[in-house]
Amino acid sequence: MVPLGGANQPLLHGGDLAAARRLFPDAPEPFLDLSTGINPNPYPLPVLPAEIFARLPDSAALEQLAAVAAAAYGAPSAGYVVPAPGTQILLPLVCGLIPPGRAAILTPTYSEHAPAAVLAGHAVAELRDIAAVGNADLVLVTNPNNPDGRLLAKADLLALARTLKARGGLLAVDEAFMDVAPPGASLASEVARGNIVVLRSFGKFFGLAGIRLGFALATPPLAARLAALLGPWAVSAPALAVGTKALADGDWIENSRRALADAAARLDTILCKAGLHVVGGTPLFRLAQTHAAGELFHHLGRAGIFSRRFPQQPTWLRFGLPAGEPQWQRLQMAMAEFRDSR
Amino acid sequence: MVPLGGANQPLLHGGDLAAARRLFPDAPEPFLDLSTGINPNPYPLPVLPAEIFARLPDSAALEQLAAVAAAAYGAPSAGYVVPAPGTQILLPLVCGLIPPGRAAILTPTYSEHAPAAVLAGHAVAELRDIAAVGNADLVLVTNPNNPDGRLLAKADLLALARTLKARGGLLAVDEAFMDVAPPGASLASEVARGNIVVLRSFGKFFGLAGIRLGFALATPPLAARLAALLGPWAVSAPALAVGTKALADGDWIENSRRALADAAARLDTILCKAGLHVVGGTPLFRLAQTHAAGELFHHLGRAGIFSRRFPQQPTWLRFGLPAGEPQWQRLQMAMAEFRDSR
Repeated sequence: MVPLGGANQPLLHGGDLAAARRLFPDAPEPFLDLSTGINPNPYPLPVLPAEIFARLPDSAALEQLAAVAAAAYGAPSAGYVVPAPGTQILLPLVCGLIPPGRAAILTPTYSEHAPAAVLAGHAVAELRDIAAVGNADLVLVTNPNNPDGRLLAKADLLALARTLKARGGLLAVDEAFMDVAPPGASLASEVARGNIVVLRSFGKFFGLAGIRLGFALATPPLAARLAALLGPWAVSAPALAVGTKALADGDWIENSRRALADAAARLDTILCKAGLHVVGGTPLFRLAQTHAAGELFHHLGRAGIFSRRFPQQPTWLRFGLPAGEPQWQRLQMAMAEFRDSR
Repeated sequence: MVPLGGANQPLLHGGDLAAARRLFPDAPEPFLDLSTGINPNPYPLPVLPAEIFARLPDSAALEQLAAVAAAAYGAPSAGYVVPAPGTQILLPLVCGLIPPGRAAILTPTYSEHAPAAVLAGHAVAELRDIAAVGNADLVLVTNPNNPDGRLLAKADLLALARTLKARGGLLAVDEAFMDVAPPGASLASEVARGNIVVLRSFGKFFGLAGIRLGFALATPPLAARLAALLGPWAVSAPALAVGTKALADGDWIENSRRALADAAARLDTILCKAGLHVVGGTPLFRLAQTHAAGELFHHLGRAGIFSRRFPQQPTWLRFGLPAGEPQWQRLQMAMAEFRDSR
């Protein structure tokens, strides 16, 4: 197995408390993990009967999940939905929907996109501007983007998809954080155009990243190719049960969107008071800039608060949301200490 | 999404109670599902704290699972183990470890092997005899085999692996039911030879198929390629927790092996008394032959007992194990009724 997050590896991802403990062995436990963009107030787990774990996931339950996901995300129908054990595993499969060619990735972004395109045989170019995709066959964008929250206009993406279509190219849009973006920004309703694949994460917005559930939205022929690669039981039965219930819970979804927006505003205030510049983000995470990012990362880490840094952007720190008043107080106190120490 | 088990599709797999209900809409519920080879007495689920579902699966927990699995299966070390959300999803990835060429599959066997080899670009030949693999680049065998239980000798498989190695070929051994096979039959301890990949299922022997957990055992370079395709969080956190506990529970494993062997013997007696010939199987399922297989399948189905038939082998029926005395009695009574009706 590939050793992930070993002591000498750079931290490619948030959420790895084993890595946090290696970095800050003397930090007080429990760690306050702000290194991810996962909703800290998860969807309440329904009772999961033991039989759910025992039996193979049911094909009828899978169909039902696809239908509920289509409605929740605004895809045309269940036939456009491929449930998967998280979107990560879908990345190389989606990149492989077209023959190896030139892939353009809008950066900085989620670190697994470029490797996935390479695994699918593409030559990868990293770009800063969607207008610069040139003659790429595959364009892979995160919208809204992680970590800076940049939101690409739907009209621009649709124009890009048209250009790509003329040469048999594919537009893949990772909408991992679209649940908390402005309404109408998703391309889920546009996948019938034929060369657009949208990825949707379940675990981030619903705060259940451990359960592993994500979706590809695409035309039925592309969806069938992805489903064949995943095979018949890719999604666990607990994920089927929880996902079907949560994606149909409009009240929880609406309330959580509001609560996350409020929490993000509160986090911005804390970051600003500590002298950081909030330069982007989504309601699930905030990106802050400071020349003291390295010191602050270590200060917080020693206090048992794990934030996210970016080796390529040494002045950036990304913060997820605390859950509950004690966690907010802990962050506020640590940030105030840092400010006062300088 | 590919519609799985739709009303007009042949039943490719066991365990699909939605399909059973379409076939036998008037059957008494609950169905007694004997259509799979899954242990009906599952490993007792540990308490799964809500936090397990909320957080991303931890890299340290993944390492620990790999180490426990290596010890349980007899692989050289954790570096030879790739945990995955079931072995199904690994099949096309394992077939893709060598360039597209000629794949030989020993049949009849699990119906997903040939499609997986095709997905990886191979031309597939189905063979009845391991001696007939000819100039295949990839040989894919199930050992012990499903549904007939045929066990290939380790020496023969190792000789085949040597032959394949000389031409850069790969031997993939699906050991989905090896947990209940005679000791020493597994090739898990031989994967260091370099061109052997062993697949191990967690859900069948431990009776937790809904959780989706399986393993590829292979040399570290091959394991790293598979792990990269799966990405960092392919296995759900509940599966990590349950798998790590169960695979280390030697007492449960030992007791279950004995109990399954006893149950298989009891099932054989019932099948024989009803006039069926038991022609193969493993302790997790029995393969019976009778010219009345079609009638018996429907008789049992109408009584709410779902067995497994095989479109290509119309005289075969496969039976999984009942759990608990009421289920045994229900099967016994339905089989006696069938015998008396003829």
